[in-house]
Amino acid sequence: MSQSLRLGVAGLGTVGAAVVRMVARQAESLGASTGRTIRVTAISSRDRSRDRGFDMTGITWFDDPVALASSADIDCVVELIGGAEGPARETVEAAITAGHHVVTANKALLARHGAALAKAAEAKGVALAYEASVAGGIPVIKSLREGLAGNRVSRLYGIMNGTCNYILTRMEREGLTFDACLKDAQALGYAEADPTFDVEGFDTAHKLAILTSLAFGVEIDSEAVSVEGISAIQPLDLRMAEELGYRIKLLGVAQVAAGGIEQRVHPTMVPKSSSIAQVMGVTNAVTIDADAVGELTLIGPGAGGEATASAVVADIADIAAGAKRPTFGKPAQTLPSSPRVAMQRHEGGYYIRLTVHDRPGVAAGVATRMAERDISIESILQRRSESAAMTDPHGRSGQPVPLVLITYAATEGTIRAALDAIAADGLLAEAPQLIRIERE
Amino acid sequence: MSQSLRLGVAGLGTVGAAVVRMVARQAESLGASTGRTIRVTAISSRDRSRDRGFDMTGITWFDDPVALASSADIDCVVELIGGAEGPARETVEAAITAGHHVVTANKALLARHGAALAKAAEAKGVALAYEASVAGGIPVIKSLREGLAGNRVSRLYGIMNGTCNYILTRMEREGLTFDACLKDAQALGYAEADPTFDVEGFDTAHKLAILTSLAFGVEIDSEAVSVEGISAIQPLDLRMAEELGYRIKLLGVAQVAAGGIEQRVHPTMVPKSSSIAQVMGVTNAVTIDADAVGELTLIGPGAGGEATASAVVADIADIAAGAKRPTFGKPAQTLPSSPRVAMQRHEGGYYIRLTVHDRPGVAAGVATRMAERDISIESILQRRSESAAMTDPHGRSGQPVPLVLITYAATEGTIRAALDAIAADGLLAEAPQLIRIERE
Repeated sequence: MSQSLRLGVAGLGTVGAAVVRMVARQAESLGASTGRTIRVTAISSRDRSRDRGFDMTGITWFDDPVALASSADIDCVVELIGGAEGPARETVEAAITAGHHVVTANKALLARHGAALAKAAEAKGVALAYEASVAGGIPVIKSLREGLAGNRVSRLYGIMNGTCNYILTRMEREGLTFDACLKDAQALGYAEADPTFDVEGFDTAHKLAILTSLAFGVEIDSEAVSVEGISAIQPLDLRMAEELGYRIKLLGVAQVAAGGIEQRVHPTMVPKSSSIAQVMGVTNAVTIDADAVGELTLIGPGAGGEATASAVVADIADIAAGAKRPTFGKPAQTLPSSPRVAMQRHEGGYYIRLTVHDRPGVAAGVATRMAERDISIESILQRRSESAAMTDPHGRSGQPVPLVLITYAATEGTIRAALDAIAADGLLAEAPQLIRIERE
Repeated sequence: MSQSLRLGVAGLGTVGAAVVRMVARQAESLGASTGRTIRVTAISSRDRSRDRGFDMTGITWFDDPVALASSADIDCVVELIGGAEGPARETVEAAITAGHHVVTANKALLARHGAALAKAAEAKGVALAYEASVAGGIPVIKSLREGLAGNRVSRLYGIMNGTCNYILTRMEREGLTFDACLKDAQALGYAEADPTFDVEGFDTAHKLAILTSLAFGVEIDSEAVSVEGISAIQPLDLRMAEELGYRIKLLGVAQVAAGGIEQRVHPTMVPKSSSIAQVMGVTNAVTIDADAVGELTLIGPGAGGEATASAVVADIADIAAGAKRPTFGKPAQTLPSSPRVAMQRHEGGYYIRLTVHDRPGVAAGVATRMAERDISIESILQRRSESAAMTDPHGRSGQPVPLVLITYAATEGTIRAALDAIAADGLLAEAPQLIRIERE
């Protein structure tokens, strides 16, 4: 057996401690499968005194993760500090400079600096591995980079934020509001005190940008992602979705479009029969459409110490086994930047929930504005409240009522122009709700 | 870029031809991701004259695949001949002897000779790669071997035969008989003229044996798989499953049990809400339960030229990139054989459909025989035909009627003993139907 692989683990939160325990617990099978002994020989964290459930004997403590990363006595740095800047970035940069392999779970760091870090790592001939940065324990990076090596990917989409999927699942099942579910998610530890990063879609956008670079062979560009979160979703939208044969999921979607790769994060109507529609609670899932394989869906845990550590340890095992692939599938120097595709040019089906004044001719007025722009309506759904029906012999109360349209494929620019015209006609009592539809 | 990887492809059916085209089509990206040029330089097939949609320029033709496998001018043999013996086995053995890497889609060969071939390949220091042998385009071998390297697997189960899943899907959706659906499957090319190998579960058993070896670190032993096919499933069973909240799928299941690894293939009741229950038609799926990752499910195409070629090319790319892992995760010489676990000792829930004489006291008699053996009944469902109800004021016709029981966990031996006692009591008009339940 060749020389052992010595790991320096920077950051000992839930994931870091799980990695250290897993490397020890699985030492024998990792050695047998990779041909090398894998050992944690150095660690660094903010608090030295805490008991993390593993034996520190033979492990060197560093107060400074950058010093750990620069140490000559390790071969691979496992960065689990988090954050796009500061100690995490400095640790990864120092490790690469020192000629050490890097394994990281840090999606924010990769989303912002992934292109530069990949170039630096490849110039040094070291690995920059990041399976744990997207969809936790699901081996989606490995599947894209290696398992689909013979494929051209045309689209990928996924549920990559457990917080949002938990909230949407509760809203759907119990008819609760977003705010009520968010509070519960916070109480259960599924959402942060400041939930903005998760519920407004930015976390998903980081992950999507990473997958996009790998799947489509373009330079990572998280600024190119169009982002919309789930805070505006109402229980009524989930009921309407149910009735129309859909579920609402926060998806990250990347697809080949005219002029580049479209990258978008938004609440999405997915057909109830699709694999991804079955994914409930904090579970994550990614579906990949590719020319040879057709459709491939991976479903598993998106977070949690053990599941994330599983992905980190898989990366470590690859490094020990001598696997060598460029960070984003092709040499980082050769990755082209991908022109940004404006959301206005996105083409797809739309769920549009209007709140209209309940007067004669409103539905006709809406339909006319759509028809003028060649937008075809697949279905239309109007609900009057019972009280409204009782106050007027024709069932028209003049009160605001919901009017839901499902359109066939149209560009977002056209849809928005039609909605502007409808609003200018004075037909709307509230701003319209617009949810994109993603078909299988 | 280092020396190119020269492929010899033996067998040019749908998959073989797709592999040759894919290697040419993806030449640039495969080179960029693996650091080596990958080229098909030799081919062999039975019929030289057929047009297979690719350019033969620069490719050496071999009439004899064994001669191709022994050629000094190739680095890697892609065996797509099929069959556990004869030319396929001789080709793989010749390739290993000649020091060439081997990529194969041949589940039958691996199921029967996998242990010996792995030892031979590892002794020669060459790869024996077989992603395409299980679940077509789904990267399940890679996920188990590499993606879950830090995990201990406790159970895996999957839909690994598209023919069976197609037939069960049609039976469920259209209320048709097994025979009718089989005929349609044959007409559509989803089933062979002699469908025994697929519908009686042997194909799934081969695939399960391969996954078991890899997931649990034991020597491959397809004789240890308990096998039962779907030909005895009746439309009534699918209707009952629906009513009780289940679907019926032909699963291959391997799990840690007292005394070894239980390997079994049989029609299975799975909860309608499970990921695997959503898998319809010829699609395949595998769910893996492991200590760190929890539950991981992979869903994708289980067959088809392009999808299978996708898995073959992924293996080729791994070899080009220099990836080196033992065939079954650990050195083949070190894999222990796993004691066979008798199905009688299997413990789980059961769906039992009895056909009883419609007389007073029958249900009580059945329940008594169950209770005597401490078998707890979760639910019981009795249906009388309307005509039966009309002929007798108490709704009892004396005619055979179905009586369905769902049990809590019990051993198969106990269940069978109870059914024997019930039969000896003269309560049964037909042999009982028994379908195992697999819970999430």
